[in-house]
This record gives sequence, C-alpha cells and structure tokens, in this order.
Amino acid sequence: MNVELICVGTELLLGSIVNTNAAYLAEKCAALGLSCYFQTVVGDNEERLSQVLRTAMERADIVILSGGLGPTEDDLTKETVAKVCGRKMELHEPSKKAIEKFFADKESQATDNNWKQAMLPEGSLVLENHNGTAPGIILETGDAKLILLPGPPGELQPMFEEGVVPYLAELTSQAICSQTVKICGVGESRAETMVKDMIEKQTNPTIATYARPGEVHIRVTANAGDRKTAAKLIKPIVKELKNRFGNYIYTTDVNTTLEKSVADLAKANGLTITCAESCTGGLLSARLVNIPGISDIYKSGVVTYSNKAKRRFLGVKKSTLQKYGAVSEKTAEEMAKGASVMLKADVAAAVTGIAGPEGGTPEKPVGLVYIACHVKGKTTVREYRFFGNRSQIRESAVSAALSLMRECILVYYSKVTFGKGES
Amino acid sequence: MNVELICVGTELLLGSIVNTNAAYLAEKCAALGLSCYFQTVVGDNEERLSQVLRTAMERADIVILSGGLGPTEDDLTKETVAKVCGRKMELHEPSKKAIEKFFADKESQATDNNWKQAMLPEGSLVLENHNGTAPGIILETGDAKLILLPGPPGELQPMFEEGVVPYLAELTSQAICSQTVKICGVGESRAETMVKDMIEKQTNPTIATYARPGEVHIRVTANAGDRKTAAKLIKPIVKELKNRFGNYIYTTDVNTTLEKSVADLAKANGLTITCAESCTGGLLSARLVNIPGISDIYKSGVVTYSNKAKRRFLGVKKSTLQKYGAVSEKTAEEMAKGASVMLKADVAAAVTGIAGPEGGTPEKPVGLVYIACHVKGKTTVREYRFFGNRSQIRESAVSAALSLMRECILVYYSKVTFGKGES
Repeated sequence: MNVELICVGTELLLGSIVNTNAAYLAEKCAALGLSCYFQTVVGDNEERLSQVLRTAMERADIVILSGGLGPTEDDLTKETVAKVCGRKMELHEPSKKAIEKFFADKESQATDNNWKQAMLPEGSLVLENHNGTAPGIILETGDAKLILLPGPPGELQPMFEEGVVPYLAELTSQAICSQTVKICGVGESRAETMVKDMIEKQTNPTIATYARPGEVHIRVTANAGDRKTAAKLIKPIVKELKNRFGNYIYTTDVNTTLEKSVADLAKANGLTITCAESCTGGLLSARLVNIPGISDIYKSGVVTYSNKAKRRFLGVKKSTLQKYGAVSEKTAEEMAKGASVMLKADVAAAVTGIAGPEGGTPEKPVGLVYIACHVKGKTTVREYRFFGNRSQIRESAVSAALSLMRECILVYYSKVTFGKGES
Repeated sequence: MNVELICVGTELLLGSIVNTNAAYLAEKCAALGLSCYFQTVVGDNEERLSQVLRTAMERADIVILSGGLGPTEDDLTKETVAKVCGRKMELHEPSKKAIEKFFADKESQATDNNWKQAMLPEGSLVLENHNGTAPGIILETGDAKLILLPGPPGELQPMFEEGVVPYLAELTSQAICSQTVKICGVGESRAETMVKDMIEKQTNPTIATYARPGEVHIRVTANAGDRKTAAKLIKPIVKELKNRFGNYIYTTDVNTTLEKSVADLAKANGLTITCAESCTGGLLSARLVNIPGISDIYKSGVVTYSNKAKRRFLGVKKSTLQKYGAVSEKTAEEMAKGASVMLKADVAAAVTGIAGPEGGTPEKPVGLVYIACHVKGKTTVREYRFFGNRSQIRESAVSAALSLMRECILVYYSKVTFGKGES
C-alpha cells in the first residue's frame, strides 16, 4: 500500500516555517510499512489544491493532508476535499459540542467562525482533537482513503498516534511491529558499514538507518498477519544488532533520548552529575536540564569560557593553561576533576575545544575538542575532531560528552567493556 | 514570474531528515519577488522524478531542484533532467579540475565515482561548488529555466547566494530590494495587529510578518525597474515601521541575531556579561556563546538548578528562598545581583521559572518565569507567562532574557525609553 502527503499552507510556500509535519508523517508511515513516493506542498487555494489532490488520489491508496482545517476564511482544505469527492458539508453535532467545551474549559468564548470547524464532509469519520478545536477527518472514497489533519504539530501528532495509527494498521490488514535501536559512540559511516550486509538482504523485516547528531538510530520493521508473528520476526534482527553494537546501544526504546539514558543511569547508581563547559557554553547542561525531574541528580553547572574562570571556578592550574593551553587533554582533565570537587558531584563532564570559525591553528585546528569525564576519582579524557560550522561542532561535542558520560558510568559501576566502536 | 521547488531524496520520503532546503529556497525566492505555488518531494527514481519535473515545467517559469547530484549510483537528478530535456551528458573539464583540486587540498584521493560529478548535460551553465564536489547547474530550456543544486545545506546555501541570486535578479529584469525589520519584546499577535492596516493595503512594497521564538520579523520587499527605485520604495515603509515599533526594533540587518545585537551593544559600551540560569539550564549562555568572538565580553556563567547552588554560587539568601520560593521576583533579583558580583560582570541576567510538565501549582503555574537583569547597580525584574511544552517555555525564556538585557543596557547607557511593547 502506498501513501502520499499533501501539506497545505501559504506559510510553507513562503518558507516562513519548516515543514516538520512532512518529516513526522513520513517517518510514521514508513514505520507502518507504507511506501511514500511523493510529498506535495500547496497553498490555501482551491484550484491548486484540487489539482494536487486529484493527482494524489490517482497515484496513492491513502492521501494524508495536513493544514487548512482552521476557522478562518483562508482555511479551505475540508471544503475542497468535499468538492473533489462530491460530498456535501454538514454540521457534525459532537464536534460542535467539543468546540463549546474547549472554550468553556478555557473560560473564553468561541467566535462565529469557530463553528465552521464543526462543518464536515458527509460520511466523515471524525478524529477528535484534544489539543485544539479543529477535528480531523477520515474520508473513504472509491479511489483513495483521505485523512485530513490539523496543521499545528501539537495537534497533528497526538491525533495521528491516537486515531490514525490504529486505522492504518487495520487498513493494511497487516500487523506492523517495529523497534528502534539507538546507538551512540559509533560514527555514522562506520555504523552503516557494520549493517550493510543486513540491509542488503533485507525483505521482511526491513532495516533502515537514521543519522542523528552524534547518534545513529536503526529501525527494524516487520509485517505479518498478526502482531505476535511480526514481533517474532523482529527479535533475531534486534539480537544480531545487539551482537554487533554491544554496549554502544544505549536504548531500544524509541522514546528514550541519549541525555535521558545518561540521567537514568546516574539515578540508578545514586549519582549526581555536573558539567563544566567552555566551547559548548551551556549547551550540555541545557540538554540535561530539558529532562523533567532532572533536579534529583543535577544541581549546578558552570560555563568557564575564559582561562581565569577555569582557574577560579574549577581550580585548573595556571601552569597547565600556560604549558598546554586551554584546549588540551590536561586542561580538560583538570576541568572535570575540579568540577567534581568544586560543584560537589559524583560525575563531572568537561568540554574544551575550538568551535571556530576563528582561533584555529595548524596544531590545534577548528573542530578539535577535548572531553573529559570524572567518575569517583577516575578521569577519562578523549580527543575529538568534529566537522561543520561553529554550531554543528558544538552540537557534536555535546552528544560526544553525553556518550562519554554514559560509557564512564557503565565502565565504573557495571564493569562493562567497550570495544568495537569509535568516537 | 513563478518558481517551483522539487526536492529529491529518499531520506526525505522516509522522514529521516527535515526538508530545511525547501524552507530556505522558498524564503529566498519570496524575497526575490518570485511566486511559488508548489513544492514537491520525490525519491531518487528516474520515472517518478521525470513525471514530477514535466509537471513542474508546464506550470512554472523556473524550476529549482535540490539533491541527487552526488557521486553514487542513486544520484540521478542530472541524468534525468538531461533525458527529459533531450540533452546529452558531456564531460565538463573545469569541474573535473575542481574535483581534483578539492581532493588534493584535503590530501585525499577522488574515487572513480567522483568523476561522475563532472559529467553535465550539454549547454549547462555551471555553478561552482566551494564547499563540496558536486557543481550546480543552470539549464535554460524552451519551457523553463532549470536550476539544479546539491542537497547538503552547507553547499546549497552558499551556491544559491553566490550564483543563483544574481541570475534570478537579472532574469526577473526587475530589481528586487528587501529589508527585514527584526523586533523583540512585542508579542506576535500584537505585532500583527500593529501592522494589519499596512499589510491590507500593500501592493508594492509587500509586507510579510514571520514569527520566530520570542521575536517577530517583518520583511518589506519592493520591485522596480532598477535597484535604486526599489530601494526608494522601501524607505517610507521601513520608516513607518520604525515609528510604530520604536526601540523594540533591534536590527534592520537580516544577518544580525538577537543575541548578536545584545553582544554588540555590550561591546560598544565596554561591558562584560554573564548569566545565572535555573530553568533554562545553560540555554541562555549557549546562545550567547554561539557568537564567534564572544570571549571578549563573556567570561563565565552558572547554572544554579538547586536552591543550594543559588545560595552558594550567587549568594541568594536562605530567607528569600524560604519566604518567596525559588521561582519569585525576589529570588530572580538576588540571582542577577549575585551573578554580577560573584562572576564579576557588568551586566548579569538571571532566569528562574517553572518549565514543567510537573512542579506547577495554582499560584505558580507551569510557564511562570521571572527574569532579572542587573546593570551597574540597578536590577530590573519582569514576570512572564509562557505557553507550550518544557522545551518551548525554556526557548521563550531565553529570548525574553536577551530582550530584557538589550532593553536594560539601552535604558542605562543610551537613555532611551520603551513604551509601546509588551512582554
């Protein structure tokens, strides 16, 4: 079965916003085993939307449209779909009630145009919107199944999870089962090489790799007559991936992030953590602090951008800075040790490097970063060479630091070994 | 004149990457005064790409294709374009030499398939690639002008700026002139209301608003027979915007960010800056540190997530924390004052708030954030109520903090007044 995406919105055509809905929907559909050959963006214009919709209905079994369900005059996705499919618009009472309730809960009043959102093409299957006022719609026509979703990601995503995934799973009459294996500390090209043979002979399950900053995700997807069989098909593949990547796999749970896995590991071992950052300038702390409830283990961190700050807040020796420079293995080591003592944490990560664009030399080029991790008296330091612009180098350094924290905690507390990976 | 975008890449169809190229190209084309009605994503597949390309060539004057110019077998954009346009592929000697030089500079060897990148459709205008090996191409056919660009944004964007913008400007035989007015400290809906009348009566120049986290950008674009006339058309509109938004406009230079404007202001007044962060957890420092050369004015910062850390590193009084709580006007004030003293900076910003999803109460709900800025003995504190998830609340707080830093420095050193805005 194949699916086609149509994202409706003038703001997409003007480049005012990035089309994250397309990426979200495409990834979800791929995970459901649906093939997608085309994505189209079109404005809030009846004629052009009709044209695009007719083409998509000829080519695809399922067409997912996002955007244009709102209350304003500009929003005409529903009306256009109704016209193309020869359906009348009719008032949907439960949607009207839901809109009334939405505004009552917010202690505010619906404006006249809000009721437009309760007018739906006849024969619509309604998808409730728990995060906004525009309901979603599934419309089955002779040619294709049409799925209409609201544009805001905060409304589209939960609606897709709750209402569309079960519908598509039943529609494909195939049970789809997928699992994501998340890897850190292994470069993208190396990871791809390590699974090339598996990808080449894949049919069912399929194996796809996704590069994320400092990480690689491998998704294994199987389909079968029932869920149990599909789940069974996945097992040996995931097992083989575990064999190949060993401890570099930080999770097989799609919702767990790298920073979450570090935090969970620290919590499980009763450890507090801290960060001392130079070139990343707070980005490492910021990623950890994005985890709800991090206050249990993260109390404070420092950004020590100047040499003086490195000495004052972390106790880095003047002689070290003079002899080796701020960007050196020795400075990184003293930063991590000092952070552990002065910020009173069991685990301390330190980052110092040259993020560019200026400041590089032939000996210490832009992209050179030293990352240290101190765990209970033992400090591990690594040298990295990152590519890209200032922002990319800093992002890469943050991921590498999280990866190193994870490794050091595991080595110290779980006595595991790391071998096959690379930085 | 109208333009259509075709982004080629299986990774886009799978949702492995977000289509930032489409947003970039769309925004640039809009700034050049070109209308864009359709964007399409298609995989590396000859038949489907041909189909999409033919449709686009029928509808548009200019078709911009991105992706699929690389050296592998999968990359077939050039070959498909040549077939559709009835052109032969031929070796382009200067491109071959450029590829040789690229690898010589990197002290590495081109592989056999790299030479595929020097094979171009006959009659190609070549766009040099200074950031990779695949040259870009402009191909003028009877039906449409085709522009082929490499997929990686780091190659596509400079190539577009250097080679495509001048070409399109000449092609439209219209001089396009645009200016972006960037505003902080004024909410999106309020900013839109403030220019609604101007937008409604716009023809030339056109006025478009773009919401960015914590900011609003207004772009004014005029076209005329020559650049001077176009520039003249813009002037009164920009002047009117300056009248309406006053000091809330932080720049009219499209390349200046809010953090850069704060840093420039601090530099101009010979001030050092620091940050003391609770709920933003390093994000404010990280944004400042993303500015190259920030080390002149930013030396250090702290993340004080726990109450103990607020006391120890910032000297916040125990009694203040007990009486008012960590998320309070008084705590924010003491954090900023303390940061200024203990981190030895002229300007200190402090952020404390409830980012959620847990930790909210009826009196102090999720989204409540206090931001303080201390400038030479005077501390200004503001209360904010932000919406969204944990990450969005933290992003909004960072922008508000930058905006407040800018305001406080301006009020103290330039004696300007702020009036019409809102937080």
